[in-house]
Amino acid sequence: MAETIFKKIIAREIPADIVYEDDDVLAFLDINPLSKGHTLVIPKEPAETLDQLSADAAAAVGRVLPRVAKAVLRATGAKDFNVLQNNGTAAHQAVLHVHFHIIPRAGKDGLGIGWPTQRLEPHEAKLLAQQIKSHL
Amino acid sequence: MAETIFKKIIAREIPADIVYEDDDVLAFLDINPLSKGHTLVIPKEPAETLDQLSADAAAAVGRVLPRVAKAVLRATGAKDFNVLQNNGTAAHQAVLHVHFHIIPRAGKDGLGIGWPTQRLEPHEAKLLAQQIKSHL
Repeated sequence: MAETIFKKIIAREIPADIVYEDDDVLAFLDINPLSKGHTLVIPKEPAETLDQLSADAAAAVGRVLPRVAKAVLRATGAKDFNVLQNNGTAAHQAVLHVHFHIIPRAGKDGLGIGWPTQRLEPHEAKLLAQQIKSHL
Repeated sequence: MAETIFKKIIAREIPADIVYEDDDVLAFLDINPLSKGHTLVIPKEPAETLDQLSADAAAAVGRVLPRVAKAVLRATGAKDFNVLQNNGTAAHQAVLHVHFHIIPRAGKDGLGIGWPTQRLEPHEAKLLAQQIKSHL
């Protein structure tokens, strides 16, 4: 995979406003925030998308999300927030290294969310659940 | 905290199209999907929001996200997807039990994303990162 800006941040080749680091995870401020406190939490393992990330690296990221989120809320005074992780350009991914956005909601500031639900018929749901299970 | 629909799904008091389960995590189809394969991954631990979830439960959810996401992609044929986790009604949370949405992107189907970025001055970023670190 291509060298990404996040790999360079992990290697300290370019600067970032780092808020947390351990052996497997790094967290730093997004330079183009949607709201005050918008923070990225990334695995050091260089996977492009979440489905390609190892279970151990994903567990390491999951483990620190509550802690970083809590610190962001305390530092900003926000109460509500979104965690978003995008995979693929059609899904709004800009940097090809897995990253979880922690985005505080502050009044109108924050993530814009559109929620165009569809109908799911019971028999379709059962078939689809079986198909997903068959790939697990 | 109040009894939620997800607690009842975990307890098998109401039905769901379950695709994955282990001691700490349950995954099932969203009954109001944004796209085909829209799946929820939840901890069995009954925390309302991610900042209140234990590190162990969050690690357990993180660990299975890649596996469930990969199965959803294979079953649906989608390539791109979003993972979204909402906290608080102002951040679009509807059920007060932590849940991660896996939402395939299929043409125009999927999550609507608005991305109104703000300016972050370097000196503000340094101060904010310090404030977040002080709460970690």
